[in-house]
Amino acid sequence: MKSVHKVLQEFSQEAHELYLSRSVPNLLEPPDPLQFYRDWISPNRPCIIQNGLRHWPALSRWSPDYLREKIGSKVISVAVTPNGYADAVVGDRFMMPEERQMSFSSVLDIIEGKVQKGGVFYIQKQCSNLLQELPELVDDVEPHVPWMSTALGKLPDAVNFWLGDGNAITSMHKDPYENLYCVISGVKRFILLPPTDRPFIPYGVYQPAVYHEQDNGEFEVIEKTDSQKQVPWIPLDPLDPDLDLYPEYRKAQPLCCSVKAGEMLYLPSLWFHHVQQSHGCIAVNFWYDMEYDIKYNYFQLLESLCGASGSM
Amino acid sequence: MKSVHKVLQEFSQEAHELYLSRSVPNLLEPPDPLQFYRDWISPNRPCIIQNGLRHWPALSRWSPDYLREKIGSKVISVAVTPNGYADAVVGDRFMMPEERQMSFSSVLDIIEGKVQKGGVFYIQKQCSNLLQELPELVDDVEPHVPWMSTALGKLPDAVNFWLGDGNAITSMHKDPYENLYCVISGVKRFILLPPTDRPFIPYGVYQPAVYHEQDNGEFEVIEKTDSQKQVPWIPLDPLDPDLDLYPEYRKAQPLCCSVKAGEMLYLPSLWFHHVQQSHGCIAVNFWYDMEYDIKYNYFQLLESLCGASGSM
Repeated sequence: MKSVHKVLQEFSQEAHELYLSRSVPNLLEPPDPLQFYRDWISPNRPCIIQNGLRHWPALSRWSPDYLREKIGSKVISVAVTPNGYADAVVGDRFMMPEERQMSFSSVLDIIEGKVQKGGVFYIQKQCSNLLQELPELVDDVEPHVPWMSTALGKLPDAVNFWLGDGNAITSMHKDPYENLYCVISGVKRFILLPPTDRPFIPYGVYQPAVYHEQDNGEFEVIEKTDSQKQVPWIPLDPLDPDLDLYPEYRKAQPLCCSVKAGEMLYLPSLWFHHVQQSHGCIAVNFWYDMEYDIKYNYFQLLESLCGASGSM
Repeated sequence: MKSVHKVLQEFSQEAHELYLSRSVPNLLEPPDPLQFYRDWISPNRPCIIQNGLRHWPALSRWSPDYLREKIGSKVISVAVTPNGYADAVVGDRFMMPEERQMSFSSVLDIIEGKVQKGGVFYIQKQCSNLLQELPELVDDVEPHVPWMSTALGKLPDAVNFWLGDGNAITSMHKDPYENLYCVISGVKRFILLPPTDRPFIPYGVYQPAVYHEQDNGEFEVIEKTDSQKQVPWIPLDPLDPDLDLYPEYRKAQPLCCSVKAGEMLYLPSLWFHHVQQSHGCIAVNFWYDMEYDIKYNYFQLLESLCGASGSM
């Protein structure tokens, strides 16, 4: 009788042998909706669509000057951290950024180095901030991706605008969304892990805390004592994994990819991802709600087994 | 720490709560290919398409007289058993039918009661027998189901013709195919179990044997001694489950449905199914090869766990 531990290892290995590739495949053109559903969404496989947004005016328009003119005076939410790590495990805490309301121009001043400020700035608010906070920019992109909306039979739940410092990092996590991540300028670098590698990914629960910049420019850590709720998160940094602490991670098989201006990444639901970017990179992403179907059901089984088989 | 046994129970229960219904849903019309892929194939959910084959000439044409005239002299493979159970566990054996070559007319004579013969007769050879053995009938149906072929992006691997005795039974099993089961006359009764109920379904391995009718009309059992290969099969009869022997089966939640002339059942890959029929029922089914993707990968995990957690 095989141990659950061994069964899970074979399962993850079989995923790579059966249907995952060693790198993220490229499509040359926006795909046919049915074909995309069948080849990528249903089998939960990522791909890069190389010419997916060539027709967006944003690609040529979104210079700092244009953005200053169009939305410079608008006030927007910005995440500020001392080190670029927002929503990440630091020590025994889940550290959240200071959320600062700033004019778009003043964020650009910092990113462009015209103004020196302590901390790492990242416009990353995932509340459909493109539609909610920056509707002036929607005509430069699209409010949804027509072939994806046709494939999924629904519109996106959120369209998010991302702009920030080259040191801003999105720590490893997963989302319950089918995600189309579109790069307008610069480059995003993704480290991806399939849901089937879940057995090798460590989780812990952490006390939430928030950064706050003091008058002297130092960041202090404020415990969220009002919230008793601890946050489950991945403590492992895939850029420098602590393999003594998390030896099972050796068995994970990450896919790395760069998504350049004009390209979009299809990041399937429940894939773990870690994101870095070039300085001043601008991106827009579309979150379509995932289906709570057999694949989700199976993933929940996997989650339970990772608990039931002890810390892996 | 939860036991694997408990985790599997919760998993199966969650499938019923999340996305399975208590009965097999009906569609009124042949569906749009993308919509069908998204709503039924990808989530691996069965449904009945009520007017899926109303345009097939077979529905009005396939009387015994017509079939006698068109293919009466053709020789076809027929499965003959003493009790209607072909490819089923009987005692400690996996019993296969006697495969008899007969003219189509003589099979009809027996089914219509014009000729008395011992045994239960069933044309059920799953080798694409409609296209291979009875090509004269193809124009009365279709060589494939256009919207399904578009949805799946491929043609069927096999198109099978079924005609037989009301006592012929297909024992509980699963196939690695997306199956469209089309009833031309009479009615088929299905008992379906989702792949996620696998933990409650007993399996054994059995010595294969074949029925053979002797000169005195009695059936003898011939061990397939040439083949050392034992057959893994489900010993449980869902019409009369032995709950003392297989107590876990109490937790299975079968869906039962009747598929009438003019209707087709979409029977998703890896669903367990048990089939009965009205006497003389005629059906055609289309087998499209399944994808060996994340759902298959997860099902293999489930299979391994059912082994790893002991006999369930």
